[in-house]
Amino acid sequence: MTDHIIFSREQDALLLLDQRKLPVVRETFVVKSVEDVIYALQTMVVRGAPAIGVTAAYGCYLAAREVEREGVDADWRERLEAKLTAIENARPTAVNLAWAVKALRGVWQANPRADLFEVARMFLGAAEAMHAEDVEINKAIGRHGAELLKDGDRVMTHCNAGALATAGHGTALGVIYSAIEAGKKISVIANETRPFLQGARLTAYELQCAGAEVQVACDNAAALLMQKGLVNAVVVGADRVAANGDAANKIGTFGVAIIAARFGVPFYVAAPLSTIDLETPTGADIPIEERPAREVTHVGETRIVPENVEVYNFAFDVTPAELIAGIVTEAGVLRAPYGESIQDAKAGRKAKSGG
Amino acid sequence: MTDHIIFSREQDALLLLDQRKLPVVRETFVVKSVEDVIYALQTMVVRGAPAIGVTAAYGCYLAAREVEREGVDADWRERLEAKLTAIENARPTAVNLAWAVKALRGVWQANPRADLFEVARMFLGAAEAMHAEDVEINKAIGRHGAELLKDGDRVMTHCNAGALATAGHGTALGVIYSAIEAGKKISVIANETRPFLQGARLTAYELQCAGAEVQVACDNAAALLMQKGLVNAVVVGADRVAANGDAANKIGTFGVAIIAARFGVPFYVAAPLSTIDLETPTGADIPIEERPAREVTHVGETRIVPENVEVYNFAFDVTPAELIAGIVTEAGVLRAPYGESIQDAKAGRKAKSGG
Repeated sequence: MTDHIIFSREQDALLLLDQRKLPVVRETFVVKSVEDVIYALQTMVVRGAPAIGVTAAYGCYLAAREVEREGVDADWRERLEAKLTAIENARPTAVNLAWAVKALRGVWQANPRADLFEVARMFLGAAEAMHAEDVEINKAIGRHGAELLKDGDRVMTHCNAGALATAGHGTALGVIYSAIEAGKKISVIANETRPFLQGARLTAYELQCAGAEVQVACDNAAALLMQKGLVNAVVVGADRVAANGDAANKIGTFGVAIIAARFGVPFYVAAPLSTIDLETPTGADIPIEERPAREVTHVGETRIVPENVEVYNFAFDVTPAELIAGIVTEAGVLRAPYGESIQDAKAGRKAKSGG
Repeated sequence: MTDHIIFSREQDALLLLDQRKLPVVRETFVVKSVEDVIYALQTMVVRGAPAIGVTAAYGCYLAAREVEREGVDADWRERLEAKLTAIENARPTAVNLAWAVKALRGVWQANPRADLFEVARMFLGAAEAMHAEDVEINKAIGRHGAELLKDGDRVMTHCNAGALATAGHGTALGVIYSAIEAGKKISVIANETRPFLQGARLTAYELQCAGAEVQVACDNAAALLMQKGLVNAVVVGADRVAANGDAANKIGTFGVAIIAARFGVPFYVAAPLSTIDLETPTGADIPIEERPAREVTHVGETRIVPENVEVYNFAFDVTPAELIAGIVTEAGVLRAPYGESIQDAKAGRKAKSGG
């Protein structure tokens, strides 16, 4: 499941496994232009905060190539910057998108006299490095998180924070894969995750491919399953973690956290430090994307809501830090008070990568 | 919306609006035999505790007619009783099913020397009376419940406890219809209610037909919508209420109640006294139906879960009495401690109908 984001130097294109069509069809979506990148992000050909970040990074490279094709004139810097901004704004909630574009912009700013050809080369190098680094980060998240799980645990997860949501291995599912690799028997309850059904379609698919034990439940079943004692821990990913530990993730996550609290089931968030945004003080400052009504009104071609009835389709909610037992990062498991542990971890990482 | 359960004397058949096909198609399902009745109940051509009760009552009549067609011999009583038992056991959770069959059995036992023709005639009369009475009961539930809602309230409901779930007017939606009739502006958030989508398909449909304001949300959105202050009250129906006030209702209801408690949103159950079962001491004694996997794995013809992945499909959960702000019945709004208020209401009703 690491062939879902491939950069092909031969085709000079990003090859994405089209996640809209899983689990029924495996189809490649070819990304060659900025328009393609934005379309792939917005329609969720690719989704998941870390995967969005890596895709955006390759998108910056494709933006440079597009400027090149359109002609290198005196305005090329402005034209490139406009394309980077367009990519950055494709979706609002996952901070990894802005983080990745900002990282590549930083590479460029560090070499202000580079010509367009050099900028493109640097962007591709940075994107490939980010792609490779994300897998390593997820393996570190997995190692730290695996220690939280006991042999025989049944873990509920919401949405897909697996290999498909990242460059590989996954964040929440990375914890599970690492625990299994460490010899623990772990089974997973994948909440189906309406409306886009990432849990039913993607989490179940990738766990099945990996030979892991998985059962799918409607999101509605969380309270009953926890009441029955079938859930030992909840592990989810995140699209943005605020400086105080509040964590935005797929709609429904907050409800699972509230229910888990009632049953004393520990609720963990697994995310790379790049998902923690110190410039977002609290969850209230995280913009929540609203998505097209059709995701709610239809499944495939089947209409499930009467015509002319309005629907809500907020794509994310924010779980307050008080409901989170730990935030599993590549730097270790952060614990409350998160204001402090997050500052320490972010500073540590800066020190390490800067040192 | 009172033409969804019609007994046709001309056709000697029960005509059900096929609720599996709404909102896209309005189609009549003709019930002429015990096999038809059981099929209609089990596949949810008709669903909702009170509607199940009325359907079962007509089913008892059709059972008597079927015994007649098969031949009136010395065994006809045993054969009829076997058919009644088969109807009674069609689904386990909604107590109205057993309640209705028991009521008709009681009519028969009160006239032990009646011949089969007379039994059939009594059964039809009792079913028609139950059918008419259910609408009156729902209107009384509506009147009592309407007083709980303020002008301008936005009410979240889960599943469909509307006209379609009853003989007419509805229980939870009856409260809303009555509040609107009383001149209050009320809008409804219908949780879509996976997996069978009664909220998206049925609640939205019947509220739209009634000209009421409705928006559909994925079940996942409950916590966010309540956090946003968009929900003033939750009103749901019930399939069985235990003697201590624990209430079984469609899967997901329990989660909504837990979330509502966190946000201080009052959570009401609206149900006729026939749904309260004194022989069920607590929620732990309510059998929870498990339904076919296909309801979860497919929507229409679209497969949403990979092949060979197991799913959970518990159809109900039980909301503990402590999370219920009031149980709205035709005898008024029952309040905690429910052990007492339920005993009083049930005794009052017995006294009234017995007096």
